[in-house]
Amino acid sequence: MEETLAAIRPADETAMAAARDHQARLTKPAGSLGMLEDLSVRLSGLAGVCPPPRPTPATVAVFAGDHGVHAQGVSPWPQEVTAQMVANFVAGGAVVNAFARQAGADVMVVDVGVAIPLHGGATLLDANVRRGTRDLSVEPALTPDEARAAVEVGLGVASALIDSGAKCLLTGDMGIANTTPAAALIAVFTGRDPVDATGRGTGIDDATLDHKIEIVRRALALHRPDPADPLGVLAAVGGLEHAALTGFILGAAAQRIPVIVDGVIAASAALAAAAFAPDSVAAMIAGHRSAEPGATVALAHLGLEPLLDLGMRLGEGSGAALALPVVEAAVRVLHEVATFDSAGVSEK
Amino acid sequence: MEETLAAIRPADETAMAAARDHQARLTKPAGSLGMLEDLSVRLSGLAGVCPPPRPTPATVAVFAGDHGVHAQGVSPWPQEVTAQMVANFVAGGAVVNAFARQAGADVMVVDVGVAIPLHGGATLLDANVRRGTRDLSVEPALTPDEARAAVEVGLGVASALIDSGAKCLLTGDMGIANTTPAAALIAVFTGRDPVDATGRGTGIDDATLDHKIEIVRRALALHRPDPADPLGVLAAVGGLEHAALTGFILGAAAQRIPVIVDGVIAASAALAAAAFAPDSVAAMIAGHRSAEPGATVALAHLGLEPLLDLGMRLGEGSGAALALPVVEAAVRVLHEVATFDSAGVSEK
Repeated sequence: MEETLAAIRPADETAMAAARDHQARLTKPAGSLGMLEDLSVRLSGLAGVCPPPRPTPATVAVFAGDHGVHAQGVSPWPQEVTAQMVANFVAGGAVVNAFARQAGADVMVVDVGVAIPLHGGATLLDANVRRGTRDLSVEPALTPDEARAAVEVGLGVASALIDSGAKCLLTGDMGIANTTPAAALIAVFTGRDPVDATGRGTGIDDATLDHKIEIVRRALALHRPDPADPLGVLAAVGGLEHAALTGFILGAAAQRIPVIVDGVIAASAALAAAAFAPDSVAAMIAGHRSAEPGATVALAHLGLEPLLDLGMRLGEGSGAALALPVVEAAVRVLHEVATFDSAGVSEK
Repeated sequence: MEETLAAIRPADETAMAAARDHQARLTKPAGSLGMLEDLSVRLSGLAGVCPPPRPTPATVAVFAGDHGVHAQGVSPWPQEVTAQMVANFVAGGAVVNAFARQAGADVMVVDVGVAIPLHGGATLLDANVRRGTRDLSVEPALTPDEARAAVEVGLGVASALIDSGAKCLLTGDMGIANTTPAAALIAVFTGRDPVDATGRGTGIDDATLDHKIEIVRRALALHRPDPADPLGVLAAVGGLEHAALTGFILGAAAQRIPVIVDGVIAASAALAAAAFAPDSVAAMIAGHRSAEPGATVALAHLGLEPLLDLGMRLGEGSGAALALPVVEAAVRVLHEVATFDSAGVSEK
């Protein structure tokens, strides 16, 4: 982990300037591709070269875990749904599978903390650190060693995928009740009140939302996590998939591979990654604006503008998969579009 | 044309109800796919069946034309750029070509009104009605017969593509100065002041924008177009590509094939199509929110919410092509995602 953190460097300003120059010579009015031009510049800065590599092949890694805080009634869904949905991912029947097929991405499922022992398949990696976290509202969710082990799982998955040729990583997650630790992480790392960081998750009612905010508030009062100690924060109020996603993002950033951040769970992990290594933000692409308010708070703190805004709040990596073709299109422009000179088009 | 208009019918409520029911049984929290759920319902209503056909193969038809109003200095680009960009589309070097390759769509280029005779290629259709419009600020841009001929070009292209197997049509356009007639059309059909409908196009300065608004205002005062007579409006203040796109949209709607509307030019044509046949809106999908203010005004008038909002203002069909994978993803959900029953996932 220390080696990974040391490898994370800022974006390459020379490559970014080259991308801006190249955009200005392409056969289109300057600035007419809006956010896609900015994205092409950022990806050039990350790769250190313009044009940057196409972000394909790409893999969505879905990290699954369970949560002791589920016992506090923060979600109407039974905890067993985490394991059932893992089986659905492995069978290819979930939304993230459909969206990944659409985008031409692979899906890999990682059990980093599911409460029930799972029977895998070729696409399920058993990396279970602990069968669910402890209840963060009454004790630390994880020991520091467990949190570190989960971060290392994410680092290892990122490394393995990149070694196998992945040019873009996409964050995915599954865990009934996992928006509660996400809200706590976002409140800690952004300094915002839990009321701004906590949302309805799968669609809870007003009374349950009030209760969920109170649970987050209680956890923060109990643990007083220090945002300058991201491992301590993940241990106190995080989740195993949140910690693994933190490592996954850091692993991508260390190897200068773009990572598309999905929704609120991924955004909370992105805050932890930025706390470990501020330059890791250069590798992050916000796939979409989740309907969860905490996602918007987190992305604003990171200075990331999401590509899509479709009112989605599913998780799984669905919003990241949906954004992948947009990211590919932004890179394609630099590779494929003619210049005014080459196409013989007059300038104004 | 009259036959096409008579064939345009409302969405099928039974198929829409079936799509809503099916969405509720899929393994995801109700409503968690936001706008994609609404889109899947609309596409079911258009097709009259749930799930609706996948929107592939798909073709972007780029209708190109020139504009007499260019003489008024509403654009800094020379008129010859229209023909040069047509050559760029045919050669595959423009942004719309790159985005269409990304989305797996074909590109077809239609000369419906370019000022300069063009030397085609396999992907260029010569359907030139007139070598550019007249100057709408001093006389009607087109005769009613010319406007009708251009609408028929669009109808014919839509029919030919659908007969060849297209399951989704995408609007594209090219025409230096064509945001000026688009602004006039939007002002007429929405009743809004030209200041709300007129934008900076390729990026004009404040003085040119003021002049452009004044040109639109002068044209409306001169012709006093009647929004209840869409052919008369297209003739007075439209463009050949605007009229062709109107026919293209109507042709898609008549055969219940979805049509992804690109930017401000397409949105102005969509208003004309809705004036001819209000039920044609059921076939329209707003691909993106163009940075041109008139596009937002037009889409709001049509009751359409755009899928993407990336600050783009290029035209060509680029925003429609970028939205195609999102549309495909929305349909894929209905075809591919498991139900709670089939996947053995517990409900809350």
